[in-house]
Amino acid sequence: MIEKMLSTIKQNQLIEYGDKIVVGLSGGADSLSLTHALLSLKEMFGLEIMAVHINHMLRGEAADADAGFVEAFCLENHLPFKIYKVNVTDFANEKGLSFEEAGRIVRYEKFYEALGAFDAHKIAVAQNRNDVLETFFINLLRGSGIDGLSSIDYKRDGVIIRPLLDIERSEIDQYCLDNGLIPRYDHTNDENDYLRNKVRNVLLPDLRENYNPSLDDAVMKTVNIMRCEKSFWHDQNEKRFHECCTYENDVVTIGTTVYDALHPAEKNQLIRYAVKRMKGNLTNLSYDQINQIARLKRTGSMCRIDDRLSIRRSHNALIMYFEDQILEPSEKKLFVKKVPL
Amino acid sequence: MIEKMLSTIKQNQLIEYGDKIVVGLSGGADSLSLTHALLSLKEMFGLEIMAVHINHMLRGEAADADAGFVEAFCLENHLPFKIYKVNVTDFANEKGLSFEEAGRIVRYEKFYEALGAFDAHKIAVAQNRNDVLETFFINLLRGSGIDGLSSIDYKRDGVIIRPLLDIERSEIDQYCLDNGLIPRYDHTNDENDYLRNKVRNVLLPDLRENYNPSLDDAVMKTVNIMRCEKSFWHDQNEKRFHECCTYENDVVTIGTTVYDALHPAEKNQLIRYAVKRMKGNLTNLSYDQINQIARLKRTGSMCRIDDRLSIRRSHNALIMYFEDQILEPSEKKLFVKKVPL
Repeated sequence: MIEKMLSTIKQNQLIEYGDKIVVGLSGGADSLSLTHALLSLKEMFGLEIMAVHINHMLRGEAADADAGFVEAFCLENHLPFKIYKVNVTDFANEKGLSFEEAGRIVRYEKFYEALGAFDAHKIAVAQNRNDVLETFFINLLRGSGIDGLSSIDYKRDGVIIRPLLDIERSEIDQYCLDNGLIPRYDHTNDENDYLRNKVRNVLLPDLRENYNPSLDDAVMKTVNIMRCEKSFWHDQNEKRFHECCTYENDVVTIGTTVYDALHPAEKNQLIRYAVKRMKGNLTNLSYDQINQIARLKRTGSMCRIDDRLSIRRSHNALIMYFEDQILEPSEKKLFVKKVPL
Repeated sequence: MIEKMLSTIKQNQLIEYGDKIVVGLSGGADSLSLTHALLSLKEMFGLEIMAVHINHMLRGEAADADAGFVEAFCLENHLPFKIYKVNVTDFANEKGLSFEEAGRIVRYEKFYEALGAFDAHKIAVAQNRNDVLETFFINLLRGSGIDGLSSIDYKRDGVIIRPLLDIERSEIDQYCLDNGLIPRYDHTNDENDYLRNKVRNVLLPDLRENYNPSLDDAVMKTVNIMRCEKSFWHDQNEKRFHECCTYENDVVTIGTTVYDALHPAEKNQLIRYAVKRMKGNLTNLSYDQINQIARLKRTGSMCRIDDRLSIRRSHNALIMYFEDQILEPSEKKLFVKKVPL
């Protein structure tokens, strides 16, 4: 497993010499193996390693016992650590999210908090090849483009790294056996993510048994092609954005002289890129909206992207702006002056 | 159904006024509806319509009865027609192909033959939205890139057109009922394509029932995104090919000054495009080969694409050539002179 992980790290430049790395440590087989494996690479890469554990408070005593287990492991291995306790149930109810989605948001928020607290460079999380396959099918079943089909990435924002992404769950279990690691069994995985578990335990075994015994390799080819396409579009969008867009005072202006001549695929990608620059994410941007935006041809026509963000066509530009932003009189003046609607 | 078909025809510019169209008519519900629907558009588009039927000789008397049915339908509707009889079993065994693959090859060969014989412009085939979904999953289960995930296209080579591609099987059945059409039941579909039938009758119903009741719409979004990407790459490849490639005497030369600076996704697409220009298809070009070709960096290094086609790196070009081609002394001289290896 270590050699495979090393090759993943090198190929995707996940770790640089001297990195300070916070490992997300739930206590389950994946994160325990990741922590153990990174510790064994400590000297090779001159690493500083610390752990962060998030107690989701979803399982009462069992969750506290997990936290205790992580604490003991860290003390034994002289690993600095932080344990956060967050009531995910409350957060999910408050925001109207599923437990899984809420857990994910809380987790990454705390990961970044720990990154700051430890003054570290990277956060290593323990997702593996099986997670990639499951995520691929979950996204596919919901309807998805290149981003969704490229599934989980090795790196995000240059900060989140996933060194186990090419390793299978079975290899991780073997690694635990070989190294005398006795992980906690993470029941939340089973309880809170119904769809993921059905994909993992029913759909994927069925597809392997009845459709293609090499399903995992076949789907990984698709995932890798999509990763490559995603990276192409990232580069392409940066170029195009520089070429025909400005981004000032929270307003993106897309010059239509260049934009109108683009292929529909380029237009869609550029709009997604601009939305991401404005909002930081693509949540709630639907396929239908993208198509609507592509049809904005008449001056003055507009499309709401969400309850704050809109896009409007002027005679020589597409203007993306926050509606509340331009309600401020001073801003409005500035905005109107800069880009007459 | 007719309105939906009309909108498909217009949006994808499948038919021009005055077209001569050969319809592939098996006698099943899909092709019978297509023929009937096209006949109803005859005046609107000033069409000439004729039919072609291929007797695959896979089902003895039943196949002959289908041919008889088609003949009767054509005579009744004053439709010029041609019936071809081909022994698909022999062809499949000879070429080591599945019945389905052999049937497909024979069918399109005869379609093109009929196109010539009738001096027609287009060949209309009756694939529908369910076929698109099935093909998507078949390709996905085998491992596939953008081409495979974009499934079946509305048009191929500007000649094959698929006016029913947005229509569901249930709508076609309804159309038959409404218009008193009593189609032949095409048993070969069930018998010869085991995988397609399992996808149609087991996998898709399971995914709809247990994972997403709106599965078809979700997957069609993915298919449409992939169609758009495919069309982008087609345009992009034509530009790039013009920019850095030459194609003379069955040799493609890709200038590495431009090529080396491309994004991996662009390189892969350009190589696929060049192979298609050379061979007419991408059969047997695997994902691994594409990756191997991308790694040709050293002058003199080479990669076999199939038993005839190879690609070799010279100091300033990638040269794609047929091995038997350059064995001819005169060609060899020409080749060596033009592009020193």
